[in-house]
Amino acid sequence: MNEIVKTSAFIGAQPYSPDEFEAAIRAVGAERYHDKHPFHKMLHGGQLNKEQVRAWALNRYCYQEAVPRKDAAFMSRVHDRELRREWIHRIHDHDGLGEEGGGIERWLVLTDALGFSREYVTSRRGALPATKFAVEAYVRFVVEQPLVIAVASSLTELFAPAIHRERIAGMLANYDFVDDRVMAYFKRRLAQAPRDSEFALNYIKTNALTRAEQEGCIAAVRFKCDVLWAQLDALHYAYVTPGLVPPGAYRPGQATE
Amino acid sequence: MNEIVKTSAFIGAQPYSPDEFEAAIRAVGAERYHDKHPFHKMLHGGQLNKEQVRAWALNRYCYQEAVPRKDAAFMSRVHDRELRREWIHRIHDHDGLGEEGGGIERWLVLTDALGFSREYVTSRRGALPATKFAVEAYVRFVVEQPLVIAVASSLTELFAPAIHRERIAGMLANYDFVDDRVMAYFKRRLAQAPRDSEFALNYIKTNALTRAEQEGCIAAVRFKCDVLWAQLDALHYAYVTPGLVPPGAYRPGQATE
Repeated sequence: MNEIVKTSAFIGAQPYSPDEFEAAIRAVGAERYHDKHPFHKMLHGGQLNKEQVRAWALNRYCYQEAVPRKDAAFMSRVHDRELRREWIHRIHDHDGLGEEGGGIERWLVLTDALGFSREYVTSRRGALPATKFAVEAYVRFVVEQPLVIAVASSLTELFAPAIHRERIAGMLANYDFVDDRVMAYFKRRLAQAPRDSEFALNYIKTNALTRAEQEGCIAAVRFKCDVLWAQLDALHYAYVTPGLVPPGAYRPGQATE
Repeated sequence: MNEIVKTSAFIGAQPYSPDEFEAAIRAVGAERYHDKHPFHKMLHGGQLNKEQVRAWALNRYCYQEAVPRKDAAFMSRVHDRELRREWIHRIHDHDGLGEEGGGIERWLVLTDALGFSREYVTSRRGALPATKFAVEAYVRFVVEQPLVIAVASSLTELFAPAIHRERIAGMLANYDFVDDRVMAYFKRRLAQAPRDSEFALNYIKTNALTRAEQEGCIAAVRFKCDVLWAQLDALHYAYVTPGLVPPGAYRPGQATE
């Protein structure tokens, strides 16, 4: 992968102060986090029908499932044991550990409630190809980019609690097939995401010291917003407007056993 | 990376029975596990001087440090959550979890006792380049090979308890700078390695079903033996015969602060 920003463009440029750097990271969310996507507005506002919610949950599983692989891919490059020891809890959060089932299990409770078999969901065979391409691009990104930029790509979590709160309220109010139990994934993330984003924000403030590195981190958050946005574009195209489902992907009403 | 064995050479070949397959895996150890290397015979027999033991511990740190990255790299490719949940304990064994310091910490107790600073050891700057190339080849191997072959490459652990028992006894008997505390790493591995190798052996018996896959697994154990053997060749060459230390690597007696 090419440099995410052209380092040579920032030779001699003054680094941002920590506060300026954080503000620039947060500005990316204000500009392009996927809470602004029309599909999410429809989801949270109760304007999607059940089949469209099902398609969303089925596709979003691919993202959930990619995240612990992304975190493992990141760890595979880290020589600093303390950083690995800190980072591994992200895998536990998603995969669970021992008795704790983890976030993916909670996501499958949602897809259960929506009437999909676990075999169909976890096979990912009904997901949109564009979904899979987007999430695998994220896994590759943390393999290929400098570590500090890889860490920065997780920072969309800074923006997640607000969307999760909106989603929990909106989906509970608007969909009779949604209850507290199936919203458990998002409730848990309300507590997990701030811990993670605080660590990552401190990490990049400490480790991205040149302007070029800082710009790389900001671009990483943009990249990650693109990964999230592209998934909603694909859902919107396939299941809302124009509603053209690509060959092989889940079709509303299709038997999926 | 090329296919580790030429699949086309085994078209139509009868698969091994599970017992034959296991016997073929074990035969690799009998043929080329690094307990047969002259450097190990010297180490365990008390024929190395302290500087040579130090060089061994310093270099072997690189292998210890690569293993959890190798396991994370493997996990980054695994879509099966149950397999990730099983595999992650290998990272815990090496990196520790919470209060438990883990195997790398126990290795650093050994290098402490041998008088190296942790900064020098963990920087890996005194290690032989050949050591680093060998261990990173192992990390790449599990990224590039089919999963079942990647799992098989861990199976040198089948042969590890015997060498660890020999090493504990031989080093305690022969070196006055070695005591129970610094041998803690190997004592712990006596319990950990059999659990891991049993899982991996069952996994490959269940998942390598064609003769070509089975031959790939056997070749993976050979490859892994090569990774271990090459490290001892490099140590033997640099620190025993002819004793030519490459530029930049640790030189006996060198100040390392």
